Amino acid sequence: MHMAGISTRSLALPLVVTLTCGSAALAQGPGPAVTTLLSDPRLQQARAFIKADHERFVRELVTLTEIPAPPFKEERRARAYLEMLKEHGLSDVEMDQEGNVMGVRKGTGGAPMLAVLAHLDTVFPEGTDVKVKREGTRLMAPGVGDDTRALALMLSVIRAMNAAKFTTAGDVLFVGNVGEEGEGDLRGVKFLLQRGKYKDRIKRFLAIDGGDQGGITRGGVGSKRYRVTYKGPGGHSYGAFGLVNPAYAMATAIARFSDLQVPSSPKTTFNVGVVNGGTSVNSIPSEVSMDVDMRSESCAELKKVDDAFLAIVKGSVADENRARSTREGSVQADPKVIGERPCGETSTEAPILKTTAAVVQAFGLKPTFSVSSTDSNIPMSLGIPALTIGRGGPGGRSHSPDEWTDVEAGGVAKSVEVVLGIILAVAGER
Amino acid sequence: MHMAGISTRSLALPLVVTLTCGSAALAQGPGPAVTTLLSDPRLQQARAFIKADHERFVRELVTLTEIPAPPFKEERRARAYLEMLKEHGLSDVEMDQEGNVMGVRKGTGGAPMLAVLAHLDTVFPEGTDVKVKREGTRLMAPGVGDDTRALALMLSVIRAMNAAKFTTAGDVLFVGNVGEEGEGDLRGVKFLLQRGKYKDRIKRFLAIDGGDQGGITRGGVGSKRYRVTYKGPGGHSYGAFGLVNPAYAMATAIARFSDLQVPSSPKTTFNVGVVNGGTSVNSIPSEVSMDVDMRSESCAELKKVDDAFLAIVKGSVADENRARSTREGSVQADPKVIGERPCGETSTEAPILKTTAAVVQAFGLKPTFSVSSTDSNIPMSLGIPALTIGRGGPGGRSHSPDEWTDVEAGGVAKSVEVVLGIILAVAGER
Repeated sequence: MHMAGISTRSLALPLVVTLTCGSAALAQGPGPAVTTLLSDPRLQQARAFIKADHERFVRELVTLTEIPAPPFKEERRARAYLEMLKEHGLSDVEMDQEGNVMGVRKGTGGAPMLAVLAHLDTVFPEGTDVKVKREGTRLMAPGVGDDTRALALMLSVIRAMNAAKFTTAGDVLFVGNVGEEGEGDLRGVKFLLQRGKYKDRIKRFLAIDGGDQGGITRGGVGSKRYRVTYKGPGGHSYGAFGLVNPAYAMATAIARFSDLQVPSSPKTTFNVGVVNGGTSVNSIPSEVSMDVDMRSESCAELKKVDDAFLAIVKGSVADENRARSTREGSVQADPKVIGERPCGETSTEAPILKTTAAVVQAFGLKPTFSVSSTDSNIPMSLGIPALTIGRGGPGGRSHSPDEWTDVEAGGVAKSVEVVLGIILAVAGER
Repeated sequence: MHMAGISTRSLALPLVVTLTCGSAALAQGPGPAVTTLLSDPRLQQARAFIKADHERFVRELVTLTEIPAPPFKEERRARAYLEMLKEHGLSDVEMDQEGNVMGVRKGTGGAPMLAVLAHLDTVFPEGTDVKVKREGTRLMAPGVGDDTRALALMLSVIRAMNAAKFTTAGDVLFVGNVGEEGEGDLRGVKFLLQRGKYKDRIKRFLAIDGGDQGGITRGGVGSKRYRVTYKGPGGHSYGAFGLVNPAYAMATAIARFSDLQVPSSPKTTFNVGVVNGGTSVNSIPSEVSMDVDMRSESCAELKKVDDAFLAIVKGSVADENRARSTREGSVQADPKVIGERPCGETSTEAPILKTTAAVVQAFGLKPTFSVSSTDSNIPMSLGIPALTIGRGGPGGRSHSPDEWTDVEAGGVAKSVEVVLGIILAVAGER
């Protein structure tokens, strides 16, 4: 998806100047323009530093990748990352109650806090071989790209900021967070923004996740998951024939749900992934359940599916209790939410988006915008301007055992510079 | 259910004479009439013997009850019963491959073999306390009635036949059989009649099961059980949305099946007892299954339900493959039979039925006829004249831990005499 108003031509000054206004507005004060930033001599210093820092980036990426971090078991990697953060001149370097690790790079004041995140967890279960193999400039290991490369990259960015003595108006909170993948259900970011000590201070949010740095995630695919348990009186299949059967009510609900029409754009989906229940073939079940997943790029469409589903469940219960005898008890359904990734989006007019697009474009990349499910879902749902940006590459086979990422020095340097540029522009460089 | 043409008056000679023709026809030769049998002086001898034999009956009933015999674990009780059978002058006393134990009481020839059965198995699992408690004439223990009382009664009957020197035209095969209850799926009788050494010789069949001796089971409730497995390509709930989902096909089948109309008479039932499948909420399942039970007093109605069900399964697959994409593969369903009790009935005109009713009536009992699910289902389905007759009582709470049976001497003696009379009449007493 391309954003209206953003040209795909290579950088032209007038466009950048226009976008600079956004950045200034974002910093809520007279901030430096992206143009100024790009011509700042400190950027040359940073560039030189980043080049010299390459081996350390690779070493840290390998070290982190080889510490397993399955969902809910990120602690070893988190503690290692905490120690790394401590070497970067940050204040308040700590682990929060949820297991996120973080530190603050103080700003000069005059702009709100920006949170920058890379997630610690991988999708890979305990026991996965995470030893990094190298062929030329290619590193291969489960998780080496998603999102470990971003963890290493974040450290390089901080070092480059320090080396070139960049200061920002707002504080920048650097976070290695837990719980981004699957069943983690975004628990790290939920804690950070709903219960953590910076929850009222974070007003901008950048998650470094995904490969290509032209790709910017500006919308969060929302998801909602239920386990619906249907209960009834049960009984003998022959002797008690005619009593309500919770499996019939559930089947009716599934059959009706399967008929639901959803738009292909904004992409909206639903699924019944697990069905379970009953004790024997000759007993009317007393309990059955189903696990249901629904997602949409659009909050409104997700709500439509959710509402329709709950109405279908309710109707299926009523119909079963009408169709058969309730003399021994009726069928009831209990839909329990077992996962929720709130949807949300960052407006195409938001300063954070215009600024980020301008920086990306200034580096010769073509900004493209998409909607996905990332840590940014949470700030977006809370109205905090948020984007998920790329960690660079090339790389591939995320979530598969043969995942890889390329660490050719020039490519790595460029990806560090892009993220550095975005952070400086969004946080309000001084 | 009362049989047309059978009076409920106490025994009247003309009726018995009429019924005697049936008995004669049954023995396929000029057999003795029920009237003759009842006036035979040997019956008085037998009656005196049975009275004297009472304590042994009780002792053997207690001994057998206290040997646990859960489904598929009847062997210890079977071996004990085998030893008991050996004390009764039978030939070919043995255990067959399925675990049934049996012996033949030779006839004089001129009539086919009659099999008389009591089942060894109980519904109670291993570890159930089967110690018999006694209060007055009441014995209490799991399984003491169903069907252990019939096992003990069968031994008393053989002893009485021997004591009174009764001979029969046809051989009588006495069997303690396995696998009558539940998951045993009638395996003992299936083996006996389909694969056992007497399979081609047994032409009449009496199962001693059930309490009241007026009650005669002349029809077998048929049942058929399926596990239907639905398979599909699976996929990610969001990424692969739109692919066929086997859970949707199965739910459609269940919902349609639940709408099936079946008669209350002849009683016909169906049930979906277990549903299962899928691996995670965000995956389209690649496999789900359901366990289905259907039963009817009527072979024709059972076939209707069976045919309708299989058509529904087929239709659900076709509809799912039409409703969603099969680009990664289609949904398929595999209905596998996991249990089958064939239905069947013994005609109200069958000699075995007329003879048995006449004997029952001669003992002052009112014959009533019913349809149930017993070992007789198998011979009935094979066209072998078969009935399930009572073991006497009173008794109650079958299939529950507080099962009981009454062993008052007069009551026991009468129940032994009734079974003796039926066997002699059906086997063709000489």
